[in-house]
Amino acid sequence: MKYSDFLDLGYKPGKDDIIALFRIRPSGMSMKEAAARVASESSNGTWSELPETALVRRIAAKVFWMGAHYVKIAYPLELFELGSMPQLYSSVAGNIFGMKAVESLRLEDIHFPRKYLHSFRGPQFGIKGVRRFMGVKKRPLLACVPKPKVGLTSSEHAKVGYDIWTGGIDLLKDDENLTDQRFNRFEKRVEMSFRMRDKAESETGERKSYLVNVTAETREMLRRAKLVSDIGGEYVMADILTVGWAGLQTLRDECQDLGLAIHAHRASHAAFTRSLEHGVSMAVVADSARLVGVDQLHIGTVVGKLVGSTKEVKDLERELSSEIVTEERLIKKESHLLEQDWGKIKPVFPVSSGGLHPGILPDVVQILGKNIILQVGGGIHGHPDGSHAGARAVRQAVELITEGKKLSETRDKELRVALDLWGRFKPK
Amino acid sequence: MKYSDFLDLGYKPGKDDIIALFRIRPSGMSMKEAAARVASESSNGTWSELPETALVRRIAAKVFWMGAHYVKIAYPLELFELGSMPQLYSSVAGNIFGMKAVESLRLEDIHFPRKYLHSFRGPQFGIKGVRRFMGVKKRPLLACVPKPKVGLTSSEHAKVGYDIWTGGIDLLKDDENLTDQRFNRFEKRVEMSFRMRDKAESETGERKSYLVNVTAETREMLRRAKLVSDIGGEYVMADILTVGWAGLQTLRDECQDLGLAIHAHRASHAAFTRSLEHGVSMAVVADSARLVGVDQLHIGTVVGKLVGSTKEVKDLERELSSEIVTEERLIKKESHLLEQDWGKIKPVFPVSSGGLHPGILPDVVQILGKNIILQVGGGIHGHPDGSHAGARAVRQAVELITEGKKLSETRDKELRVALDLWGRFKPK
Repeated sequence: MKYSDFLDLGYKPGKDDIIALFRIRPSGMSMKEAAARVASESSNGTWSELPETALVRRIAAKVFWMGAHYVKIAYPLELFELGSMPQLYSSVAGNIFGMKAVESLRLEDIHFPRKYLHSFRGPQFGIKGVRRFMGVKKRPLLACVPKPKVGLTSSEHAKVGYDIWTGGIDLLKDDENLTDQRFNRFEKRVEMSFRMRDKAESETGERKSYLVNVTAETREMLRRAKLVSDIGGEYVMADILTVGWAGLQTLRDECQDLGLAIHAHRASHAAFTRSLEHGVSMAVVADSARLVGVDQLHIGTVVGKLVGSTKEVKDLERELSSEIVTEERLIKKESHLLEQDWGKIKPVFPVSSGGLHPGILPDVVQILGKNIILQVGGGIHGHPDGSHAGARAVRQAVELITEGKKLSETRDKELRVALDLWGRFKPK
Repeated sequence: MKYSDFLDLGYKPGKDDIIALFRIRPSGMSMKEAAARVASESSNGTWSELPETALVRRIAAKVFWMGAHYVKIAYPLELFELGSMPQLYSSVAGNIFGMKAVESLRLEDIHFPRKYLHSFRGPQFGIKGVRRFMGVKKRPLLACVPKPKVGLTSSEHAKVGYDIWTGGIDLLKDDENLTDQRFNRFEKRVEMSFRMRDKAESETGERKSYLVNVTAETREMLRRAKLVSDIGGEYVMADILTVGWAGLQTLRDECQDLGLAIHAHRASHAAFTRSLEHGVSMAVVADSARLVGVDQLHIGTVVGKLVGSTKEVKDLERELSSEIVTEERLIKKESHLLEQDWGKIKPVFPVSSGGLHPGILPDVVQILGKNIILQVGGGIHGHPDGSHAGARAVRQAVELITEGKKLSETRDKELRVALDLWGRFKPK
């Protein structure tokens, strides 16, 4: 087949086609040719002309829409292995980024047909399930990472857990690079932290949990998940991108049997999501994570220390928590979502994290709504009166926000101190 | 700790430190401050000031060298979990890419201390081991992917295998997006292809093998590897980046027991390696793959359809196949390697692939040497007389190159036809 066989602007995508939206800058050729080459390389073409069969022709990808810098490509479902996230990436997010035919190329979003969608598990709990087992109906859930993120011993870590749980935080969370270090062994940390969890639960009368980082080689990761389950935990946490899709799918399978929810940290995503011209968008990562079935995923804060425009973060919230995503008109230089009916795949709880403190929480809730998890680290432990007071300040802020009140109305000492220290400071 | 605590230009890295070379473009602050913030976020700092212990201070990362756009950061070994590739990435290639403190950030290379190095397996076979079991002493090894890469049935695939093996190619290879599709089931393809392999071996008297793509969710991937081993195969192939580090480490463990070599395809790498300003370099991917222990890895062609400068591809060849890598003076806008004594970690066979055909093979060998695997797809099947003739042309070219002769000296019909068709054409 020739390149031009991969371009068919009259083609109407079938109901079983996977559709990908790309932003393309061609290199030394027309947009049409570059787009056709992308469709070719990501399906079943190559640079030389080859003999073809009816099957080969039928399953070739087709560029069927072009507008400004964007193209939509339809991929017949037969190109894919059902239920395999690595194979999806190897196809539509594989060799194409290195092609000389493009100056730059960004995969913006993917639309999945129902048959493909339902070959994955999706979240076991999702937003509703998490709210149910945590016993929190309306307000945002609250999470906290001990800081310094690496360097606390297991007992110091558990002590911080106790302080923030009793201060009003729902979830203790390991940070992305804390796994099993010499000075803070996984087993010991889990054991001591859950002992403190039980104490905090009986003292506060609230449900408390712990997002335990099980990131590791697959078998070790599953062994750690089993330990968490055995000790009575509700959650594992994984750095889904540094673990990778094969390991995440295996962890998801295991968590079904263990009855554990998955908290997904997105460490490393910005290596390929940050450029608006090249790479893979965070929306695609969010789609993939929802399909595989994480229950909670980091999406950014808009106002914190990590990049992410308001539109991007809101789109991520929409992609994760909607039953049906509707498509918008394409606008230059912004992120874009394709239409998606999520069918039986449950919504994922969006997590806002990175440089948050009480003074900027109203901005985050205003942008993203109350159906989110607010995760605060430095903005709790940096409180002048310590982590317990910092946790109280965050809970006090969130109660006010949930009641529709202003933080300045507070009569609580801890929140007052936090506001005096940080105001609405935006960390870098 | 304050940011400035993560900057110590007088610091001499200890023998157990992991050292990372970054290229940084600060955003609204000095290079010193941006570099210190990168060191902080990738080790154990945060944006707020926190109480600290002796341990926390001791294991903080330190910016110890700065020059032009580059900085070197030393990370005490205690920050890391030995033998865990996901944890390494979550640390030194994690959140930092999304920090507002940097305009762009690229992880260029990592130096590993001996203790960390030897907590990984490294390749089971490496270059020497592969040459031994394939019985090929001096010339480049030759591999070929059937094309169209997706769309052949299992029997068509096996037939192509027979054609190229008997034409003089050593290795049949699945392409990155061919796994287990409805029209070409994994089991059936493997069974039929190995039957043809045995036939080709007995007819040619040469050793032949098949790089079988086992890319999938981890348990399924291991099941497929076992099938390959049971049927008498020597290799599995994996798309190491779409599988991810957790799954790759598990596959490596399994392959030790099964006695299988690992061929690593790098599909998706250019999503984050292509920009010279932002992301992670392919050199870091190559380091990581060597540590985990793949036996063969794609590094590019310089002259083919995929991007990759001569210096970058040569550096990759050097990083993969040297016992000791020496550091060069940093030059603007080029890739760079830090010093590395690879200790007991065996060299990896570099694979040159993507848009190759006989006419440009001399260029590739001139740039990369003979200790490589040349993989040709479209440049074999696009031959006017078919895949068998195309394979013969490639083998004829490589024999001439190995003897130090020019391709124009050929008296072989197949090579002559290929040269007449493509000359030294460079595909896009």
